[in-house]
Amino acid sequence: MTLATIGAGNIGKSIGVWAAKSGYDVIFSANNEQHAQDAARAAGGTAKAATVRNAVAAADIVLLAVPYGAAKDVLTDINDLLKGKVLIDASNALTADYSGLTLGFTTSAAEEIAKIVPEAHVVKAFNTVFAQVYASQNPKVNGNTIAVFYAGDDKESKAKVAELIAKMGFDAVDAGALASARTLEPMALLNIALGYGLGHGTSIGFSFNR
Amino acid sequence: MTLATIGAGNIGKSIGVWAAKSGYDVIFSANNEQHAQDAARAAGGTAKAATVRNAVAAADIVLLAVPYGAAKDVLTDINDLLKGKVLIDASNALTADYSGLTLGFTTSAAEEIAKIVPEAHVVKAFNTVFAQVYASQNPKVNGNTIAVFYAGDDKESKAKVAELIAKMGFDAVDAGALASARTLEPMALLNIALGYGLGHGTSIGFSFNR
Repeated sequence: MTLATIGAGNIGKSIGVWAAKSGYDVIFSANNEQHAQDAARAAGGTAKAATVRNAVAAADIVLLAVPYGAAKDVLTDINDLLKGKVLIDASNALTADYSGLTLGFTTSAAEEIAKIVPEAHVVKAFNTVFAQVYASQNPKVNGNTIAVFYAGDDKESKAKVAELIAKMGFDAVDAGALASARTLEPMALLNIALGYGLGHGTSIGFSFNR
Repeated sequence: MTLATIGAGNIGKSIGVWAAKSGYDVIFSANNEQHAQDAARAAGGTAKAATVRNAVAAADIVLLAVPYGAAKDVLTDINDLLKGKVLIDASNALTADYSGLTLGFTTSAAEEIAKIVPEAHVVKAFNTVFAQVYASQNPKVNGNTIAVFYAGDDKESKAKVAELIAKMGFDAVDAGALASARTLEPMALLNIALGYGLGHGTSIGFSFNR
């Protein structure tokens, strides 16, 4: 299974490196090619760097890991390559000071992204956990397994994302249809508030007990 | 410490009964007096039933536990009694089919309630956990302590609510200012989706690991 990252910053690099360790063939891509090459080197094994178009063309699963404000341009450029592909949206449409979301309630970042690339199978995931947790490659905090929620409208695509989440060791929690991103994105904002403004730091996470 | 409930349905009765067991003097009130009396009998000890006005007048902490749509009328009637008092808002402004919220993003049920009774110290709490968990008097699921998030603008009032939450055995998590209800209310919607649509039932809950 080949995972391409679009973006090799905190989220793209850390999830990609962990996915590589979990058995995925990972291709990193980024506007800054050096970042993609650094991430591929950090991942080792079969991981490599490529242009965004080449990475996406070769991938089974594409992880969108650029700031929400940058998503539209990059997705428009690769719209033709995303038909029928799994596109993981890990973004949060945050205000400049991280204190709020720039959209919500009647839509979500995930749904806006799905409008840009309507033939991709968009799955919201990985947005409610800090990049530092992904970088740590530790899915537990104080012995409790952190939940990574995922939401989407295509069953098979969701299963692929759930498998990736589970292989990383997280608790993969199906949150329903893509519109459930309207709850997962505020949850990410709560996570950010708890981590920064409320002083708990970034080695934190929600569990879902059932 | 005297806790008055406004409403003696699933939320008001179950939290009130548990609060009584945790050492609070509880006065139940409800439009249906029989419900308030039933709840007081279930609580036993010093618990009693009263009219809404008498209950609120005697309380240190008031738990608003009526459907969001019923809140405005009841609060308008007791506005004069709520000056400087702690008012816990446990509500979620749900659509009729429980699939969505009727407001959010630029406001929240808690903030709308604070506009109705501006001299009360509104604290959002108890809205992200099912009433069935409160009825069970068990703050853990699978050995993990469930988080009860609280948010408000008055520090002393928040401390009183945190104490109540902790005495019940939950993990009391400060979610910040009252506007953080904009994240806690969507979280409740996620909880409802997980419990019903996604089949996990009502003995569920989120933990916050840090």
